[in-house]
Parts: sequence; structure tokens; C-alpha cells
Amino acid sequence: MDGLASINGLGSSYTDNVNPLDPEEFRRQGHMIIDFLADYYQNIEKYPVLSQVEPGYLRKLLPMSAPYVAEPVEAILQDVQQHIIPGITHWQSPNYFAYFPSSGSVAGFLGEVLSTGFNVVGFNWISSPAATELESIVMDWLGQMLQLPQSFLFSGNGGGVIQGTTCEAMLCTLTAARDQMSSKIGRDNIGKLVVYGSDQTHSALAKAANIAGINPKNVRAIKTTKSTSFGLSPESLQIAISFDEKAGLIPLYLCATIGTTSTTAVDPLGPLCDVAKRYGMWVHVDAAYAGSACICPEFRHFISGAEGANSFSLNAHKWFFTTLDCCCVWVKDPSTLIKSLSTNPEYLRNKASDTKQVVDYKDWQITLSRRFRAMKLWLVLRSYGVANLRNFLRSHVKMAKLFEELVASDNRFEVVVPRYFAMVCFRVLPSALCKFQNEYCDKDDVDQTHANEFNRKLLESMNASGRIYITHAQVDGIYMLRFAVGATLTEDKHVIMAWKVIREMVDTMLNTE
Amino acid sequence: MDGLASINGLGSSYTDNVNPLDPEEFRRQGHMIIDFLADYYQNIEKYPVLSQVEPGYLRKLLPMSAPYVAEPVEAILQDVQQHIIPGITHWQSPNYFAYFPSSGSVAGFLGEVLSTGFNVVGFNWISSPAATELESIVMDWLGQMLQLPQSFLFSGNGGGVIQGTTCEAMLCTLTAARDQMSSKIGRDNIGKLVVYGSDQTHSALAKAANIAGINPKNVRAIKTTKSTSFGLSPESLQIAISFDEKAGLIPLYLCATIGTTSTTAVDPLGPLCDVAKRYGMWVHVDAAYAGSACICPEFRHFISGAEGANSFSLNAHKWFFTTLDCCCVWVKDPSTLIKSLSTNPEYLRNKASDTKQVVDYKDWQITLSRRFRAMKLWLVLRSYGVANLRNFLRSHVKMAKLFEELVASDNRFEVVVPRYFAMVCFRVLPSALCKFQNEYCDKDDVDQTHANEFNRKLLESMNASGRIYITHAQVDGIYMLRFAVGATLTEDKHVIMAWKVIREMVDTMLNTE
Repeated sequence: MDGLASINGLGSSYTDNVNPLDPEEFRRQGHMIIDFLADYYQNIEKYPVLSQVEPGYLRKLLPMSAPYVAEPVEAILQDVQQHIIPGITHWQSPNYFAYFPSSGSVAGFLGEVLSTGFNVVGFNWISSPAATELESIVMDWLGQMLQLPQSFLFSGNGGGVIQGTTCEAMLCTLTAARDQMSSKIGRDNIGKLVVYGSDQTHSALAKAANIAGINPKNVRAIKTTKSTSFGLSPESLQIAISFDEKAGLIPLYLCATIGTTSTTAVDPLGPLCDVAKRYGMWVHVDAAYAGSACICPEFRHFISGAEGANSFSLNAHKWFFTTLDCCCVWVKDPSTLIKSLSTNPEYLRNKASDTKQVVDYKDWQITLSRRFRAMKLWLVLRSYGVANLRNFLRSHVKMAKLFEELVASDNRFEVVVPRYFAMVCFRVLPSALCKFQNEYCDKDDVDQTHANEFNRKLLESMNASGRIYITHAQVDGIYMLRFAVGATLTEDKHVIMAWKVIREMVDTMLNTE
Repeated sequence: MDGLASINGLGSSYTDNVNPLDPEEFRRQGHMIIDFLADYYQNIEKYPVLSQVEPGYLRKLLPMSAPYVAEPVEAILQDVQQHIIPGITHWQSPNYFAYFPSSGSVAGFLGEVLSTGFNVVGFNWISSPAATELESIVMDWLGQMLQLPQSFLFSGNGGGVIQGTTCEAMLCTLTAARDQMSSKIGRDNIGKLVVYGSDQTHSALAKAANIAGINPKNVRAIKTTKSTSFGLSPESLQIAISFDEKAGLIPLYLCATIGTTSTTAVDPLGPLCDVAKRYGMWVHVDAAYAGSACICPEFRHFISGAEGANSFSLNAHKWFFTTLDCCCVWVKDPSTLIKSLSTNPEYLRNKASDTKQVVDYKDWQITLSRRFRAMKLWLVLRSYGVANLRNFLRSHVKMAKLFEELVASDNRFEVVVPRYFAMVCFRVLPSALCKFQNEYCDKDDVDQTHANEFNRKLLESMNASGRIYITHAQVDGIYMLRFAVGATLTEDKHVIMAWKVIREMVDTMLNTE
């Protein structure tokens, strides 16, 4: 204890008398952080959207080791401002149009802050009944808003759970499907199981399959084409399955996507489920991005056919005003998840669980410990209400339409694939490069490769300007720019300005070459 | 669009003019939530520690569906106070001694709030360089504080990553180990792979193994005994491995625990790694709970031998003042993780990643999307400094010692297993039940079963009182109460009061029977 006494003697600014969770210190620093963040939002347009730092920038600015004595919060916040913010890519900026935006909101923030403050570890019901019960309730609410089949809701003997991300949703449902099938065909046949998606399915599927012990050779990325707008054709699925069956393999799991990452393509749920049903396959619907839009009646048709699926997931942190992370997953038969994922160690036993009166969400997911994520979803639903949430989503779609019209008005550009939601895939046309005799035009018929290279350079220049941030996709050999509206602060004027930036950049590139 | 217009016409309190991320509205509601939580901490001792609600309580209080029109935040916070708080088990209460407490702090809270506010999705470096770089830096800082072997740090060609929970850490390292082994023995032999732990290893291991496609029959829970204080004996491990090898199985992975959940037992790392090394096995160190204490020189010896392991994890959200979730994982050879977990879809490609100058943490974990978790760990380290952090941990250990002394001073009780850290396993002795001729004493030598039953009832009564919350374990046939100090607000007086509650309860139970 001599060591302890000598350390206590050191001149730390954090005195032994202040508990690290002292309520008044919490209040003081809490208000400070709110003002810091409110100012951040006020000033967010002043920062380059895409961080312009070089790899390794931060190691040069920070000490080699943790401080021995405490530092005041004011000094730390100054470092956040000076050293961290320049290294942040500002996902909340109204000029952010990359990937799929993460649509923060005041209500989502408040919910996350509340659950952080309570800091409960809601692995089972008893560890915080409200965390479990609110989750079941809001998952039923959201399921109703989506008009999911009753069989996916608790009120219909299915049920919903909030996980972190789609990859977890895929991994959990795939594990459940695998174990269900193994119990029929024997565990030794795990090497024969086949997982299906399209070449547009998110990379999370192949990753989840590998983690779950599925042979990577048995993960099918079925080719899609422009003729089906890059949706998975049921005929192609049928052909792939038949081929595998002839080879002695066993079809296990299909992932159908509503709003693919590259182009927001939609797989036709009904016909795909019909094919899968013939083989007793598990169908998971990955509606990570576009599921949100389906709370609007005019978009609901995109998920019709979901009644044939076994599970359905949607990332509320993507386009539903709920901060990262919040992946809403519904399953028709929760017992399949529970069979694969439950644990029952003595130290977690309790009367409520033993009598099976309650949901213990630890058995519906990978991890044991879990945050009170339902709080933020509840706050978003209540703070805005269904009507406003629909309006917010519609306003994003409207802005994407506006951008689409702007692109269409300039004959140097094309919208490459149909726009369904709030994302526009566009590019500068090969023909545009031809008209201006430049490096991209060494023959009459400028080929795709040159156009791809031009669009790639265009993207780089735009992002390096820091004025907007856009990312790309490459589908069917075409390099395209993805203009994804969805950052909460974005308004018409930002879309118009983005278009101006893009046009100016193209003008410069074509003229100066 | 007619529908939209009519919806806009509805009397919603959220007008179309207010953006859901409006900075001034953010400021107003943000300050409100800080005061709400500061008041919560002020009043936390007034609430029953363990929630006393009945299963299904919340469904009776909330509407059947989400509101159509917006509701004011004031009304929502009122519902949080009236409907949610009674359903919360107050993990931040100073009278919380259950499971392992989650030690919140002002700094941990602030860090989480900052990362929620920035709401970046840091899957790869470019998506927010600061998120990745700060994570690498603080993981090196914390690794140094633990005196982890240099080979686990970035500065020694290893590296650290922040995942959500230990189960993820186990699943990722197990998948990496499995794939490394499969490349040698062929994928068809996955059914032969064996995973080892003790009967005290966390249930997360068996779960992770099942998810990763390891046959549940090949997960060994090697028996421990009181003679080794429930630590895994290297001799027992050797015997188990030899047995499996003779049966044609292949030893793959050992999970050694520093501070088991039931009794905080410590597995002897050095000798266990020596055994594992002979078979080319992967060794993971699960220091979820007790790893934190090892930043104090006097506890560091508990992880000596870690240099023989492949990976090491510690939950900063458990006993390191960092809110849920924050599982710090170090690996010696990050390329093994990356080989199993990397994805490289076109839509995520970027120059920084392509030139391999940067860490892309998506390839070090299960999920793609990831929160900026390093922020809270950084704030904890800086806001308190190494000296205070050590003192905080030592103060918890000191309070556990105090409790241990109180238990020892009453000859009706025993401390069942040696106390290493801040958790005391105790119980009412069978002999105490004998002295008072009651239902638990129907013969001279009251057996364990009766003592177990008495202690179980004692636990139930205490928790039903709402004054303290304690959980149990059962090891070697003995039902014991676990008194885990670690909630940040706990002071000596709470420990003394808890002991008073326990004694009173025992007095009553013994006298009234």
C-alpha cells in the first residue's frame, strides 16, 4: 500500500474527493459537451466533408503514451477541435452524399444519450426489464409501420430484435438456418451447404458465411444484368440451385436485397421466395437501406412477398434518423435463433427466465452484453411520429429526383440505372468526352475504359475539394458516381450546389485537358 | 403527392420548418437531457436497485402502435421517468453488486456522447481517419499500461482493435485460428477441430464455437477443482488434448481466463501456453473483468505468461469506467484476422486502402459498420490519467477487502473462495443453519443442499427488498453469493450498509423460520 500512498500524493488535477460519476460534475461537463456538439453542427459546413489528412497524421500529434495525471476536460475538448475534427469525415454534413448516409437526428441522439446514461447491460429480462420490453414493443411498432406480415411480430408469434449491423443479422440467421438443416442432414454435411445471393448482394453475406463455417466455394453470387435493373432473377436462382443439387450440394439460405449498395436494386421477393420454398431454404431479406422507405404507402410494394421469407432486417441507423448502431431484425420463428444462440450458465439463471415468461435477448444475437438500443428508436418514433418520418424520407427522395432532373438536363451526363429511392447513379457519358477532343477521346467511339477513368478522376477531384463527398460503384463494367441523399441536414440548396460543383469540375477537366 | 399534402396538413407539433438535426433544437433538447440524467444520478439511491416490475408491465402502459403525429420531448421524458425508470435495474446505483458491474464515468459518458454526435461510420480509414487512428493509438496506450508484450502492440507489429464484447473477440480469433488450421489440414476436417476451456470459462466460448461451425461435441469444458482455486490446470489440459489426439481429433484453440465470472479464478497463463504451443494451438486470453486491474503493478503478475498467447481481450466497459460497449482486443498477428474477415467490394475501394498504408478495421471484426468507440476510451485515459485509474481500481479492491473482513467477522458466514480482485464469494454456512433448529436443519450434519437452498432464498429476499442487488454462482456444488464491487458511485458506506442488510435478512430468516 506504500505505492498507493505515494501515487495519491502526486499532483493530479482529479482529486480523490471527486467521484468519477459525481452528478454535479456530470452536469457541468455534460452541458459543456452539448454546447460543443451544437457548435459543431452550426459550423459543420466550414469543414471539408471528406477528411483531408494523410495516413498517420494523428500519431504525430498525440503523445506516445497515456498521461499519468489527469487532464481537464477543457484541454481535451480543445484537442478534439484541433486534432480530431480535421480527421473526421463529416457524415452529418449536408454536403455528404457518399455510401449510404447515416441520418442522425436530435431524437436519435437523445435516445442514445439516455441509454448511455443508464448504462444498463440488458442481456436478459431481469437485468433491466424495460430494455427488453421496450425493444419488443418498438419492434412491433416498426413492423406494423412497414406492414410486415403479422407472423414477423410478437403479436403473431414471431418477433423482433435490435442488433448492431446487417452482418450480425445475416450471421445469426445463417447460423440458425445451418443448425436447423444440420439436425436433418447431419453435422458432417456442413461442407455441402450452399448460400445464395446475387453479384449485387452486400459483401457481408460472404463474410457471414465464412464465419459460420460455410465453405467459401459454396457461396453463390448469381450474375445480374441491366435487363432486370440488377435485381436477382428467380430463373437464375433456379438454375443455380438445380446445378448445385445435381452436384450433390444442399441449398440452405438465400439473401434477397431491397436496395443494393451499388445501385439500390430490388430483388423480386415473391418469386424468389417461391423458388426457395421448393427447397426448404431460409430466406433473409436485407432491407438495410431501402426498408425505411417502405413505411410510406407508395414504397411498400418493394417488400411485397416478404411473407415468404424467414427473416427481415433494416438498418435504422442508415435512413431512419437513429444513430449508429441499430439494425432491426424480425424473424418468423424465434425458436430457431434461440436453439443456435442460447446459453444458460448458472450465474445468469433467474426466476423470470426459468419460468419462460420473458424474452432474453442474449439468445437472439451473437453477444451476451447488449446496449439499451430500443431507447433511441422509441424516441425517434415518438419525437417525429409516423407522419413526419414519412415526410422526411419523401423529402430525401424528392431531393434525389431534383438531382436526377439536373443530371438529365445536361446531355454530357447520364443517369445509369433507374432511381428508386434517394440515390442517383450517374456518370459523364463517353460521348461527352468525344465531343471535346482530349486525352479521353483518341478515337471516335471512346470506350468504357476511358469514360470510367474520367469519372474516377472526377470523383477524386470533387472529394479532394472538400466541398462535397460522393462515392462510386462499378456495375456491369460501368464506373458510376453514387449521389446518395440522406444526411439529415441536406436541403435543396445543397443538392443544387453539389450539382454546380460537379458541373464546374467537369467543365474544368474537359477544357484543361 | 396528394397523400403527402394531406399529411402535412395534420396538426403535428413538429413543423416542416424544423430540421430533425437543427443545431439550436439540438442544443435545447441536449441540455434538457443532461439535466435529466444528472438528476437521475442524484436520485439513484431512491430507486430499488433491481427492478421490481412484473413481466409484461410495459406493454400495458404504452400504446399498441407508434404515434402518427409528433410528441414533444417533455412528454417523452415524463414517460421515461414514469414508465421506463421503474423497469430499469440500476447498474449505476452505488448499491449494485451483481454480475460484474458496469463502471460508468463522466469521461466515458462524454466520449460516447461525442462519438454519437459525430455519428461517423468508421468501417475503413477514409470513412473517418481520426476514428481509426485514435483507436490504434489508445490501444497501444492501454497495451503499454498493461505491460502487454510489445508483440501485441502496433509498435511491435501486432495491434489492437475495439470490438463490442468478449463473444465477438472469441468468435473473430476462433475464426482466424480455424481458417489458419484449415489451410493446413483441409476444410473438410473442420469437424475434427477441438476448442478448450475450463468448466469456469465464460459461456461465450461455447457459443462462439458453435457459430464458427465447430462441432459442439468438440468443445471441452475441463473440470477445475478447489485445489487450484478453480483455475485450469495445465496437467488437465494436457490430458484432455492427448485423449483427443488419440481419438483422431485436432486441438485448435484454448481460451484461458483471467478472472472467471463465477469466482474471478485465474488460469495460469505461462504453463497453459507451454502446453498449447506443443500442438500449435491458438491461445486467447479472456481478461474481460480482471484485465483492468493489471494496470496496477501489484496485479500485473496475473497476466504474466501472456507473451505465449496469440490474442488478449479486456472489457473496458466492465471495470474501466468506459460505457458499454468497449471490448479491447489485441492480436500478435493481425494478418490472421484479416485473412478470415476481410472483404473488398468495389464500392468501398479507395486509394488509401489500395496502397495498404492504413488500417481498415472492418477487416478486424465481424461487422462492417463500426462506431467511434476509441473516443470514450481516450477520454477516460486522459480525463483521469493512469494514476487516478489505478486508484479507482484499488479503491474497489479495498472495498471488497472491507466486505471480506465483515463476512469473516461473523462465524455464520464463510468466504468460499479466495478473493483476488473486487469480488467476494460468500455464503451462510451449513453449520449456521444447524445451530438454529429450523427447517434447514433436520439432522446434525445439515447438507449442502439445504445450505444452498437457504442462500438462494437469502439472495431472493435481498434482491426483492430493492436495497441492494447481488447475484450468485454455483461452483463445485456450492451455491454462493457474489458481492462484486465496481459500480462507480459505490463508497465504503454502501458496502457497510449492504452488509447490514445481509445480516438483518439472515437474522430474520433464521429467527422466523
